[in-house]
Amino acid sequence: MAKLDEVRVAVDAMGGDGGIATVISGIGLAMQADPSLHIILAAPRSELEALGTVDKTLRARIETVEAETVLAPGINAARAIRRGQGSSMWVALELVRSGAAGAMVSGGSTGALMALSRQLLGTLPGVERPALMGAIPTIDKPVWMLDLGANVNVDARRLLEFAQIGHVACKVLQGAAPRIGLLNVGTEPGKGPDVVREAARLIAEEPGLDFAGFVEADQVFNATVDLVVCDGFAGNVLLKGAEGAVRLLFSSLRDALKGSLGGWIVKKRMRHLHDMLDPARHNGAPMLGVRGTVIKSHGNTCNKGFARAINLGALQARHNLVAQLESQLWASY
Amino acid sequence: MAKLDEVRVAVDAMGGDGGIATVISGIGLAMQADPSLHIILAAPRSELEALGTVDKTLRARIETVEAETVLAPGINAARAIRRGQGSSMWVALELVRSGAAGAMVSGGSTGALMALSRQLLGTLPGVERPALMGAIPTIDKPVWMLDLGANVNVDARRLLEFAQIGHVACKVLQGAAPRIGLLNVGTEPGKGPDVVREAARLIAEEPGLDFAGFVEADQVFNATVDLVVCDGFAGNVLLKGAEGAVRLLFSSLRDALKGSLGGWIVKKRMRHLHDMLDPARHNGAPMLGVRGTVIKSHGNTCNKGFARAINLGALQARHNLVAQLESQLWASY
Repeated sequence: MAKLDEVRVAVDAMGGDGGIATVISGIGLAMQADPSLHIILAAPRSELEALGTVDKTLRARIETVEAETVLAPGINAARAIRRGQGSSMWVALELVRSGAAGAMVSGGSTGALMALSRQLLGTLPGVERPALMGAIPTIDKPVWMLDLGANVNVDARRLLEFAQIGHVACKVLQGAAPRIGLLNVGTEPGKGPDVVREAARLIAEEPGLDFAGFVEADQVFNATVDLVVCDGFAGNVLLKGAEGAVRLLFSSLRDALKGSLGGWIVKKRMRHLHDMLDPARHNGAPMLGVRGTVIKSHGNTCNKGFARAINLGALQARHNLVAQLESQLWASY
Repeated sequence: MAKLDEVRVAVDAMGGDGGIATVISGIGLAMQADPSLHIILAAPRSELEALGTVDKTLRARIETVEAETVLAPGINAARAIRRGQGSSMWVALELVRSGAAGAMVSGGSTGALMALSRQLLGTLPGVERPALMGAIPTIDKPVWMLDLGANVNVDARRLLEFAQIGHVACKVLQGAAPRIGLLNVGTEPGKGPDVVREAARLIAEEPGLDFAGFVEADQVFNATVDLVVCDGFAGNVLLKGAEGAVRLLFSSLRDALKGSLGGWIVKKRMRHLHDMLDPARHNGAPMLGVRGTVIKSHGNTCNKGFARAINLGALQARHNLVAQLESQLWASY
């Protein structure tokens, strides 16, 4: 395997329910998987001693930058704008803005990350608000979906924009143009709200997009398309609903099989399946449309999930997704 | 057990992907579970020979009424209004209107069922459009949710109406007032679209409703509330998304365990769990707000699911849910 280009990813050390221990453990896993990855960790000085747990050879690839404050997990956009300066999220974004880092990862508040990203990095031409793209696990491969909750009120043109942005991002991340589906409550042409039907018309007319028409929420899990376009409310409901259903199912399975011979035998296969299908393990949502690579990590992810978000940030930085989005979106105006 | 009151449920024989065989098998199961249940089957004459498969003692409790036509599964509301007269769906609804049946069940198009229900039965005072209420399986009990897809564009007052209708229906179906959650993309007060935040204010102010505030999609599966209120687009996405995730998981489990000793041992427990958690088995969505008991059956349900929808219709008819909705909704105006 050819050696990958060196890349620096800035990490907001304070953004996750698991605290800095999960973040640091995730950094270790991400660096093990990618020998050319360097990390710049933004954290208050008092939290940096947690780095003592890191293996010495890995530790040499971690720089630290001090942050003065930490944003509360539930902080909203307006407060983040007022109070955000000097926070670990701000410092990590600033590293991307200055070019010191090629990407940043944060498990903090989505609203705060969106607001500070726009403020510090700005958006690409024609993009009013960034969108969050995330992966839903299916049998063969994850299916990408956007928006995941950054935009709850959207019009048809905005859904078209999601399709355009997602098209470019999937080409970069998967190496092939995605087949695109528009989330709706039925697949017949007349179904659904006006805004979704109008968006279908716009996406179908757009040259270069491979549009499969409407998809229903259950079809998403059959991987009939590669990219699902929807407003942030529906996207959030679909992703979190699937997470809740999968979590309920695995905990019920564990209870049902506990103490049985059969349960003991199938334990390993079940764990493998859980790793494959748990949406929380497919962690890392690119915030697309800002002028810099920003990855939102799920607040309650585990160390493996956090590592995946970091590796995704590195992948995007190496492929220069932001520059590709800028040139290709510009071409479509 | 005291003998239940006799009740007649009209069944649209042609509404389901499994065809009349699934419907007839479901009728048999429903009658076995409820000895005071009688069925009036609406079907074209050519389809009635399928009744030959029914056990003789059960057959005595099935009447038939001939229908001239059958509506296509994907027919929309406008076409159903123009073409619906004389169809099996129409005939079954007509049996409710005339009082010959206490309830009707159909697995046909939601849009057609909604349109013909309004046309033939009318709506309760103050209710503009009926709403579909359905059950999502969770650990301890199913959680009810409305709307499930009948209303894709709603305002805040309509969401309040869903809470009021659901409150009365849950009291009747479960025997206790439900704790109500409003579906949103976060639980903090400032989160989500304007219409959802305004609805939260209205529901909180309404005396008699037990309002728990916002719930996120994953929390629905923890059964922190008994009733989830949302617009039909989000409700459809949540229910179908959960169905898709559960189906993917069980089929992956089957593949992972196939041919293994452990898989053979745990097979029975897994089947039990599947029965408990598969949303398709929690079939039967009451169409609330029309002047008659109408149950929408999932188009792709199995015979057990169809039986459950029939038994739910009988339960609502015995408790006179429509009269209770009328008196209690009227009281709140």
